[in-house]
Amino acid sequence: MRKINVGIIGAGTIGGGVAKTLLRKKSFFAKQLGVEINLAKVFDINKKAIAALEIKPSLVAKNIDDIVKNKEIDIVVELIGGLNPAKKFVLEALKNGKHVVTANKALLADSGKEIFKQALSSKVAIKFEASVCGAMPVIKMIQESFVSNDIKAMYGIVNGTCNYISTRMVEDNCSFEDALECAKQKGFAESDPSFDIEGYDACHKLNILSMLAFGNFVNKKDMYVEGIKHLQLQDIEFARQWGYDIKLLAIAKKKNDKIELRVHPTLISLKHMLSAVKNEDNALFVKGDMVGNSMVYGKGAGRYPTASSVMADIIDIAGNPNIFEINKAMYERVQGKPSYEIAKIGDLFTRYYVRFATVDQTGVLARIASVLAKHNISISTVIQTPKTVSKEVTVVMLIHKAKEQNMVNALKEINKLKVSKKKPVMIRIED
Amino acid sequence: MRKINVGIIGAGTIGGGVAKTLLRKKSFFAKQLGVEINLAKVFDINKKAIAALEIKPSLVAKNIDDIVKNKEIDIVVELIGGLNPAKKFVLEALKNGKHVVTANKALLADSGKEIFKQALSSKVAIKFEASVCGAMPVIKMIQESFVSNDIKAMYGIVNGTCNYISTRMVEDNCSFEDALECAKQKGFAESDPSFDIEGYDACHKLNILSMLAFGNFVNKKDMYVEGIKHLQLQDIEFARQWGYDIKLLAIAKKKNDKIELRVHPTLISLKHMLSAVKNEDNALFVKGDMVGNSMVYGKGAGRYPTASSVMADIIDIAGNPNIFEINKAMYERVQGKPSYEIAKIGDLFTRYYVRFATVDQTGVLARIASVLAKHNISISTVIQTPKTVSKEVTVVMLIHKAKEQNMVNALKEINKLKVSKKKPVMIRIED
Repeated sequence: MRKINVGIIGAGTIGGGVAKTLLRKKSFFAKQLGVEINLAKVFDINKKAIAALEIKPSLVAKNIDDIVKNKEIDIVVELIGGLNPAKKFVLEALKNGKHVVTANKALLADSGKEIFKQALSSKVAIKFEASVCGAMPVIKMIQESFVSNDIKAMYGIVNGTCNYISTRMVEDNCSFEDALECAKQKGFAESDPSFDIEGYDACHKLNILSMLAFGNFVNKKDMYVEGIKHLQLQDIEFARQWGYDIKLLAIAKKKNDKIELRVHPTLISLKHMLSAVKNEDNALFVKGDMVGNSMVYGKGAGRYPTASSVMADIIDIAGNPNIFEINKAMYERVQGKPSYEIAKIGDLFTRYYVRFATVDQTGVLARIASVLAKHNISISTVIQTPKTVSKEVTVVMLIHKAKEQNMVNALKEINKLKVSKKKPVMIRIED
Repeated sequence: MRKINVGIIGAGTIGGGVAKTLLRKKSFFAKQLGVEINLAKVFDINKKAIAALEIKPSLVAKNIDDIVKNKEIDIVVELIGGLNPAKKFVLEALKNGKHVVTANKALLADSGKEIFKQALSSKVAIKFEASVCGAMPVIKMIQESFVSNDIKAMYGIVNGTCNYISTRMVEDNCSFEDALECAKQKGFAESDPSFDIEGYDACHKLNILSMLAFGNFVNKKDMYVEGIKHLQLQDIEFARQWGYDIKLLAIAKKKNDKIELRVHPTLISLKHMLSAVKNEDNALFVKGDMVGNSMVYGKGAGRYPTASSVMADIIDIAGNPNIFEINKAMYERVQGKPSYEIAKIGDLFTRYYVRFATVDQTGVLARIASVLAKHNISISTVIQTPKTVSKEVTVVMLIHKAKEQNMVNALKEINKLKVSKKKPVMIRIED
C-alpha cells in the first residue's frame, strides 16, 4: 500500500481538526482509498495548542525544520494563517520538495505568484481548497469539474461573518452594531472584525476564484471593495418591501473581454437562492458556457468543515503521482501577464437602490429627479416617507440600469443641494 | 505534452456535445492543463446523427471494434444509454484495456458490480460523473471533496422531468396531466414518460449515490420507489397553505446502522432551499460528519451541461496515471457484501400529510381520529373543506412523527369505513 507522511504547521482550530482526522480515520482512508496516510509531525509555538491535541510526544515537531526539512515528510500542511511567518514556512517546504496544502487565502492573494513560482521550480504541488468557503468544494468545482467551461460569472456569499450579521439584522430587527456584538459573542466575528466587515476577507477569496477562472491573480487595488459596516436596518427594510434581501456578495464577471471584480453589499431578490443562505453559511454561483448556472452551498468556516477540505487536498496529492504536472499549467500561467483587463467600477452598468435624507419641503423629489435625469439616470420606483419627529423626509428609489460613474456624479450633485440632509446611500442590485 | 485519444460511442445529444467540445476546445485544454486530448473516432449506427456532427470522415468509426479494440484509443466514452448493447460495448472496451467514461445510470445501477469487476481485472478506470444530475459535480463531491466524511444523509431533486412537472402545477395552477403535456412539448419529458414519472430514473441515481456514500450498490427491489403520477393539484395547494412545497425527492439516510433508500413525492418547507429549485433544475443536499449540510445545484440534463461532466471525467483520467489505483478500492468494495442493511419502508419514522375524501356527515373527523389514535398516530393540524357540489368532504391533516407501518394500517382501516369515499392520500414530510 502506498504510504504518505503528513506534517502539520499550526495546531489551532483547523490544524487540530486535521491532526485528529488523520489519526481517527487512518483505517477508513486505507479501506476507502488504498493509501496509508500517516500523521508524521505537528508544529506549533503555542505549547497549549499542542498539549490539547493529546498526541504521542514523538509526533510533536521540535522546530519548524522538523517539518519543512524532514526527509520523511511528503506533504506539509500550513494552517497558521496570515502572511508571516506562513510565507517563509510554505516557501521553505516547497524548496525542500514537499507538496503543500494550505487554507491561507491572504497568503495566496498576496504572494500567489511567488509561491507558484517556487512550486514550479521544485516540481511539487500546492493545493488550497480550504482557502475559499471552508467545506465547499469551490476550487475543485472550477478547476476540475468545470474545467471545460469558459467561466462567465461567479458570485456569492463568501464571508460567514458578514452573512451572520445581515441575517441577525433581518431576523432580530436590530442595528448593525447589535448584530456585530451578537456575532462576536457567538464566535462568528473576531474581536477586531475589520478584516471581515470591511470586505477584505471576501476580496482575498474573490482574487483566488478569479485566478482559477480567468487565469491570474490581480492587484488588490484593482478590485472594488466595500464592506457592510455602513449597512443600516432601514435599507434592509425598504429592500424587503420591494422583494429584495441585502447580502455582502463577491462578484466576478467577464464582460466585453474585461473582468469585473467587486465586493459590496448587494440587493438580491428574495426569490433568489442566495436569499435562503442564512447565518454563517456560504454559497457560490458559477456560470459557465457549458454548465449554465450552478451553485454550491455549505459551511464556510469551522474546525471540521475546513479540515474536510484540507483532507481532500491531502488525499488528492496522495492519490496522484502526476499532481504537479496537472497543476503546472496554472502555476506557469500566473507567472505571465493577466489575460484580461480589470473593468473600472465607474464603468459598471447595473441597477441601484438609493436612499436620500432630505428636508420636509414640497418639490424635493422633483429636484432630485431632475438631477438624476440630467445624468441620464432613470427612476423605476419611489417611496417617500416623512419622519414626523426629525422633520426629515426619506426618499428611497430603485434606479433602472445606469452607468456607475453617472450615479456617483449625480449623487454628489444631489448631496450639495440645500434640501439634502445626509450623504445619499447607494446599493447595487444584482439580477 | 501528454497525449490522450478518445473514442465516443453514440453521436446523439450528449455524444455530439462531447465530440464538438473536444474539437472546439482542444487548444484550451492544452493551454489550461498541458494535455493534448484528441477526438480519435465516433461511432453511431444512426448515419444522420454522425452526419450532423460535420466531422472529418477519418474520425467516423466503421464499426464498434474501431472504437473498443482500437489500439490508438485510451478512453472510450459510452453515451448511447440503456442496458443493451451499452453493457456489451463497455465490457468490451474495459477488456481491451481502455478507460471508460459513461453517463449511463441504468447500466451502473443494474450491472455496476460486473462492470467494476472487469475494470479491476483489466486495471483500468470507469468514471461516471454525468450519470447523476448532469452538470452537477455530485460524484466528485462525495468521492473526492467529502472523502473524509462519514456521510449521514443525501437528499434532493435528481429528476428534472418530475421537477418541471411539479413546478408547472404550482405556477400554472394546472393538473398533473396538463403539466406532463407541457413537459412533453418543451422536450423535458419523453413521449413515454413512465421511467421518469414513476421514479425509476431517480431510483437509479440514488443507487449510484448510495454506492459512493455507503459502499455498495443495492438491489432495486430493496429501495422504496413511488413516482409523481398520482400527484394532485389540491394536495400542492393544501401543502402550500401550511408552508410546504411538494417535490419528488430521492432520499438516502443512515440511521441506526441501516440505510433508508427511498424516492417519493415529499413535503418540504417553502423556506427550504430545495423549494427554490424550479423547472428542470436539480439539487442535492449532502450531510457529512465533518462538513455538515452542503448542497450542490445546477442543470440536471441537457447537451452541454452533461457534456461538461463527461469532459471532467476524460480530463481526470488524462491527468492521473494512477486513476485506476485510486478507484480500485471502490471497485473491490462493490464485489463484497453490502456493509449496511436496507431499512424497510414500514419502519420509517417521519411526519406525514394525509387527505381523506369522506361523506358530508357529522362525526366523520371523530371516527378518523379515533382510528388514528388506536394506531398510535397523533394529529398536528386539520382542515375540513366541504365540497358543495359533490357533497364530499375533504379532510386534510398533518401528522406528528409516526411509524409508517402504523400509518398504512390506519389508512387501510379508515378506507374501509362507510364514510370514506376514496382511498386516502399519504405524502411524507421531510424536515
